[in-house]
Amino acid sequence: MSDDNVSVEDDRLMRWNGWGDPAKAKDLPLAVRTLLPLLLGRIRKPEPAAALDEVRVLPSRATADDLAAFAAAVGEENVLIDAEARIRHAGGRSTPDLLRRRAVEQATPDAVLRPATHDEVRACLDVAMERGLAVIPFGGGTSVVGALDPEPGGRHAVVSLDLQRLTGLLRLDEFSGEAVLAAGTTGPDAESLLGARGFELGHYPQSFRYATIGGFAAARSSGQNSAGNGRFDTMVTGLRVATPTGDLELGRSPGSAAGPDLVRVFLGSEGIFGVITEVRVRVHPVPRARLFESWTFPDFRSGADGMRRVAQSAGGPTVIRLSDESETAVSLAQVGRIGKALAKGASVITVYEGDDIAERRSRTSALLSAAGGVSAGEGAAEDWLEGRFDGPYLRDALLDAGVFCETLETATTWSQLAALKAAVEEALKSGFADAGAKSYVMCHVSHVYPTGASLYFTVLAGIRSEPLPVWETVKARVNDAILASGGTISHHHAVGRDHAPWLAQEIGDTGVRILAAIKRELDPRGIMNPGAVISVERTR
Amino acid sequence: MSDDNVSVEDDRLMRWNGWGDPAKAKDLPLAVRTLLPLLLGRIRKPEPAAALDEVRVLPSRATADDLAAFAAAVGEENVLIDAEARIRHAGGRSTPDLLRRRAVEQATPDAVLRPATHDEVRACLDVAMERGLAVIPFGGGTSVVGALDPEPGGRHAVVSLDLQRLTGLLRLDEFSGEAVLAAGTTGPDAESLLGARGFELGHYPQSFRYATIGGFAAARSSGQNSAGNGRFDTMVTGLRVATPTGDLELGRSPGSAAGPDLVRVFLGSEGIFGVITEVRVRVHPVPRARLFESWTFPDFRSGADGMRRVAQSAGGPTVIRLSDESETAVSLAQVGRIGKALAKGASVITVYEGDDIAERRSRTSALLSAAGGVSAGEGAAEDWLEGRFDGPYLRDALLDAGVFCETLETATTWSQLAALKAAVEEALKSGFADAGAKSYVMCHVSHVYPTGASLYFTVLAGIRSEPLPVWETVKARVNDAILASGGTISHHHAVGRDHAPWLAQEIGDTGVRILAAIKRELDPRGIMNPGAVISVERTR
Repeated sequence: MSDDNVSVEDDRLMRWNGWGDPAKAKDLPLAVRTLLPLLLGRIRKPEPAAALDEVRVLPSRATADDLAAFAAAVGEENVLIDAEARIRHAGGRSTPDLLRRRAVEQATPDAVLRPATHDEVRACLDVAMERGLAVIPFGGGTSVVGALDPEPGGRHAVVSLDLQRLTGLLRLDEFSGEAVLAAGTTGPDAESLLGARGFELGHYPQSFRYATIGGFAAARSSGQNSAGNGRFDTMVTGLRVATPTGDLELGRSPGSAAGPDLVRVFLGSEGIFGVITEVRVRVHPVPRARLFESWTFPDFRSGADGMRRVAQSAGGPTVIRLSDESETAVSLAQVGRIGKALAKGASVITVYEGDDIAERRSRTSALLSAAGGVSAGEGAAEDWLEGRFDGPYLRDALLDAGVFCETLETATTWSQLAALKAAVEEALKSGFADAGAKSYVMCHVSHVYPTGASLYFTVLAGIRSEPLPVWETVKARVNDAILASGGTISHHHAVGRDHAPWLAQEIGDTGVRILAAIKRELDPRGIMNPGAVISVERTR
Repeated sequence: MSDDNVSVEDDRLMRWNGWGDPAKAKDLPLAVRTLLPLLLGRIRKPEPAAALDEVRVLPSRATADDLAAFAAAVGEENVLIDAEARIRHAGGRSTPDLLRRRAVEQATPDAVLRPATHDEVRACLDVAMERGLAVIPFGGGTSVVGALDPEPGGRHAVVSLDLQRLTGLLRLDEFSGEAVLAAGTTGPDAESLLGARGFELGHYPQSFRYATIGGFAAARSSGQNSAGNGRFDTMVTGLRVATPTGDLELGRSPGSAAGPDLVRVFLGSEGIFGVITEVRVRVHPVPRARLFESWTFPDFRSGADGMRRVAQSAGGPTVIRLSDESETAVSLAQVGRIGKALAKGASVITVYEGDDIAERRSRTSALLSAAGGVSAGEGAAEDWLEGRFDGPYLRDALLDAGVFCETLETATTWSQLAALKAAVEEALKSGFADAGAKSYVMCHVSHVYPTGASLYFTVLAGIRSEPLPVWETVKARVNDAILASGGTISHHHAVGRDHAPWLAQEIGDTGVRILAAIKRELDPRGIMNPGAVISVERTR
């Protein structure tokens, strides 16, 4: 079996130890290879990564009786215990995940289950409850926060519950603009099914090509079109959920005062309370037209002020993104053009889709001009659209070249944005410097609200020792800086296991008690995704 | 003390046994008096209501030690046990509440507390926890769902925690468009404080003049400007909460994926988990301009289709309301004009505030015309704005005349809207008919979303026996019909005690278990608003 093989049985599987379609993997462009030593000094070439058939996994701890019970629930062919299936479900796609995938010894789940219906999910949970196995719900496998680590949480074994067969457009109410999608449906499949009926969901996070509708809901995703279509939270009108102790059908109307909105208990729950099996979402007719415009600002601060003016007015763009000076300089926003020209200032990309796009562009242009922006034509924005899902391929090439590359994100109010950005940059730069590593930090704003915005950082570093321990130290320092500066521990990547200690700081002890109480009620044996969002200890 | 006296010490106090400012109370207009017998047959004049000084309340069950402990928390002058204070906190402003206020014997809380700060609220809860008294948080006293009933829930006494002194604009971040308001601040006070700085919250439910910011949050309110400004849920960016076992500061950024949104656990919690003491909200500059336009449609169905087209497009009106044929016929939308002309068809009112109002009106007009609407000029919409908070005064006059009058509301998707409306109307009409009462049912749509809308019903009935038992039977039939037809048990009135049994049907047993688990964790002695939202039995 080749290193980069993709199972022919399932074309959704991405490269097992990297991102996406192996056929799209690329070497670093010459311009980047020229630029890197200037930014990061001499780079140490890493040890070669282990090939898939070199990886050693421990024997499955699931007993024969466990496996037989699961086989009764989903069919024998949907209970996988082979090494490849287990390795492919061993984690997500954070940089630490990918670094761990390079090793010969890897921790994996003990089995992979593939239920095809809500009732089969229900049956899997019943077996797991009765027999006491931990369950890690698995959608597209694109978590970058450790939400898929095979943590048994004190149980004798852990199974990955892969929703890849739980797919499809279950209902479409064209009149109301509402669709019900099975949770395992991927972004492209959802858009294809809806598009055939003239509708669009319009949710395009960078993980779009692989991530699933259920994952978008469970992780509170936000997509590149959030300025126009809202974050995924706001698209969801209902959920069907299987928990270890009962099912839920939530969301009866677009607005309600029928007690606290329980849909919101499961948005962001990351599988710790149960498994989202169906998602009801707002959809809209496929946009008939699209306009692009890119802008150049003197600096990040003026660009951010332009973004704020747009976000605080109605009828703006569908996509709006601001790259800071560092990101603009290497044109990271347009993966295909990286390093082609060292641009100055801070660039903004706008895309308009749907109705009244000329009016909306005109209104937005006036606001951006007033903030000091100068129109730079359509080209850069079109290039961005072309390459917008390709960033992770670049990371793979960088990691292969020995360059550490990771992203992280947060959000805050407009008035705290510059200070939060400076604090995160300082934590990153000083953290790497203390480890003797040169680093290059870039930032963009890609999700805006009337009251504030997100900050998305990409960091490159030339780490001369083992990168994982260095990154753990630096990331902890960044998380501390985020909380100290009023930011949220995550704007759209979620909590997983990586952010759990900082979530406890963000929501406080009483907040953790609320989550733990819900979990104890729905999942009294603590089988669901142990250690994600809140620590295992808090849920006992 | 006169029947209609209002304490000069507190001009927020409304008529103790009716709505609003006693000076604004009116007799029924002649046109209405003429119309009523035609609609409802001969009306039985009710027994005269008891005057305030005729009402008998039971001796306070709070012990001297209880009262001393509360006095230590908030000052002796803010622990009230006189009959008037207790009667004024005996309930909300539903029609059953007002009918109960007419009686000589009334159930009331045993004391009224008036904390002025978060820390005083905290201290009150500490005393109540230690001594085991039930606590009913009290804002403007405008609940119409029994959220303020003095239910002790098995405790020896019950106190009303009135937030009338917990007021003010605590912070305003003009750059981010975000304000922090103390929970007891009324709608008019909030707008006045913000308006002095050039900002508006823009939340105008019918209870606006008396209801409080904390009440809007606790009950998931929606205001008349919801088409433009969103329901209150969507305005809230953060909360400060005191619970019996700990405090929370929730909401760090306008968007987050830091676990489930715990703000949403408290929006709609109606005081069962704790007391909201501060609310962080999105605000916007005071609109510089306003446009009105009213429309006439052939019927409700075509009008609703026009509303749908508008709601599914961006850049529409700030206010949009559709009255059905029955409501249009008596011009109930314009209280001052009721009965002046028996109009035909279904009328729509639109109001545009903010930027680009001419463009927005033009876009909306095209959509409404395409659905069969004909513009009817500005007058009716302006009249509506003038009288928009006055509906409850009319109800008082009707009740005094012996006409039963109550409102109720729900919401669903656009495709289910007509069927839900018909089901509720049938339940109301047949319910009253079975009790030998003629009724007149009117409906409007006043909150729209891309995927659906609310339905707001006003019913008049000529009940010849005791009205309360009749209404309880009819309302139960309506609630059953709402759930059977896919509606929510409340779009913006909330749950209180009146809707609690139906909420359990709406969210299911697992949903109730989630709420009960949160309550047990935060309020282990069950002191907070016992019986509201979920039954007392479920929280033990």
